[in-house]
Amino acid sequence: MEHYVVGIDLGGSKIAAALAAADGRILAQQRCATPVNGGAAAVLAAVAALVRRLLAEHGLAEADLGAAGLGVPGMVERESGLCRFSPNLFWHDVDIAGFWREHFACPLALDNDVRLGALAEQRWGAGRGARDLIFVALGTGIGSGLILGGEIYRGSRGLAGEFGHITVTRDGPRCNCGNRGCLEVYAAGPAIARRAREAMERAPESLLWRLAGGDTKKVTAELVSQAADQGDELARWLWEETGEYLGIGLATAATLLNPERIVLGGGVAQAGEKLLRPLKRTLAARTMTASGVTYPVVPAVLGSAAGVRGAVAAALKLCDRRGEGHGPGIPGTH
Amino acid sequence: MEHYVVGIDLGGSKIAAALAAADGRILAQQRCATPVNGGAAAVLAAVAALVRRLLAEHGLAEADLGAAGLGVPGMVERESGLCRFSPNLFWHDVDIAGFWREHFACPLALDNDVRLGALAEQRWGAGRGARDLIFVALGTGIGSGLILGGEIYRGSRGLAGEFGHITVTRDGPRCNCGNRGCLEVYAAGPAIARRAREAMERAPESLLWRLAGGDTKKVTAELVSQAADQGDELARWLWEETGEYLGIGLATAATLLNPERIVLGGGVAQAGEKLLRPLKRTLAARTMTASGVTYPVVPAVLGSAAGVRGAVAAALKLCDRRGEGHGPGIPGTH
Repeated sequence: MEHYVVGIDLGGSKIAAALAAADGRILAQQRCATPVNGGAAAVLAAVAALVRRLLAEHGLAEADLGAAGLGVPGMVERESGLCRFSPNLFWHDVDIAGFWREHFACPLALDNDVRLGALAEQRWGAGRGARDLIFVALGTGIGSGLILGGEIYRGSRGLAGEFGHITVTRDGPRCNCGNRGCLEVYAAGPAIARRAREAMERAPESLLWRLAGGDTKKVTAELVSQAADQGDELARWLWEETGEYLGIGLATAATLLNPERIVLGGGVAQAGEKLLRPLKRTLAARTMTASGVTYPVVPAVLGSAAGVRGAVAAALKLCDRRGEGHGPGIPGTH
Repeated sequence: MEHYVVGIDLGGSKIAAALAAADGRILAQQRCATPVNGGAAAVLAAVAALVRRLLAEHGLAEADLGAAGLGVPGMVERESGLCRFSPNLFWHDVDIAGFWREHFACPLALDNDVRLGALAEQRWGAGRGARDLIFVALGTGIGSGLILGGEIYRGSRGLAGEFGHITVTRDGPRCNCGNRGCLEVYAAGPAIARRAREAMERAPESLLWRLAGGDTKKVTAELVSQAADQGDELARWLWEETGEYLGIGLATAATLLNPERIVLGGGVAQAGEKLLRPLKRTLAARTMTASGVTYPVVPAVLGSAAGVRGAVAAALKLCDRRGEGHGPGIPGTH
């Protein structure tokens, strides 16, 4: 039977959903704001409404859905179908599988949003053809999705890929996670802004002061990017250092995992060459140069669509598995 | 048909081999010195002789062998069956698969020795029952074997798990690998001895001077262990610091891979609690304490037999796969 799937990317500010055909072709898309303040019930109701709207628009019934995929920005326990923790949604132990079963009959592939982004880049984007892939999302935080042996790798409790919280300096600043010297305290967007503010105090001549209107609170990673593009020395140095920290982190991940490719996504990656140059230089210098192996770093190509596309890919995988006789899917357990 | 398998652990100083039944039971063992100076041909001839001796001793013919496993201390390319590089054997591009085909008809499972140690610990040792496992061998170098999703993980070019060469300090000492601040320049046996020698210059009262007979060249990691056990402050501090560096490295690996368990083997791990205490403390402090996840660290139990046992396990896996209809094994390609 020809079936359709739905992919949903549940973000802290918006929910995006797409209806796709069995071959992965996107047929329709919908999005809405995330009613975070209404709590988990309101957010999940909005998800259900979005899915129904997509189906109705396309003249489909719920029975036409073979599976759905849902990406959540947080810690997801696939066995129980719970979202254990999502800082962006302010969620603790939300029963997503239970919600889904109440509303829909088709099985749900539930996963962390960055992992689904990795899956999408591997299937349709910059990671195509790579069996072992590290996808890094550089934004407000730093997450990663690992594709190992062609499949998403999640670890024993679904916590694998917390790339932002590996140690890059032994005695660095404290991180919210409890560690110190985490990659995230140097190279996430807010960390770049913080380092810029600290450095500005010692550089009264920096263009950053003018761009921020003399108010350090207005300094963002994007502003540091603008300043660097306009030739500001301090801002350029900040990107050099950011690239070096990211290069150290990626070198560590590559030394452990020997991936075929590294895909960089997220807003901070938009900084482009001024970030990529020091990053690639550091990565090359710190990955067993004697072995002659190099690690290609490529920019993500799916942008903000990666989450939805990955949710579609996860739903399609679920359909494939059922077709192969792995039994009927049980919502929340895939 | 009931079959037998042979497991071989090819080390820089000795070759160990074991004959095992289809259920993994070890029936006989043999070992000999590695004729490293004779070059690859002499070493491989010694391997073949050892296997034949095991068979003859047990009244078996070559046709009774279902498969063999061989662990090599170096970089192994399983597709081509080449050992690309082995610093311990002084090998470059040695065609192990070709050698095997010339001498034996059964298929060969070829792998890196630390990976086979990991497999053995997972099947019969301290890693039993764990699907996601990091096995670390602390010795002259620092290697690791990753078992992910129940299988050995090798990476895109067979280089995964180079745990000794992840960066633990940004500006640390140079490593032979080309990087600086690698874990191995702090926590491998020779690195511990080097750090001890450096520290002794500033500590004329240390017991280490007496134990080394006043000759810093005689300082080894084992001597530093003895000194610490006898209460020497400097030696104790050296183990504290070693444990901290290892804890940083393990925290990084755990944050990326979220293993169920970490197994520590190799000679340096014999230092015991004085190493494990700071290691576990650092690991706990640096692995997202907020998530509440803890990572059990357990000592390896198979000791120097892990290599041979792992080679047996790899050979058995090869037999299982053939039994499942994956076609006849082609030597050197498994």
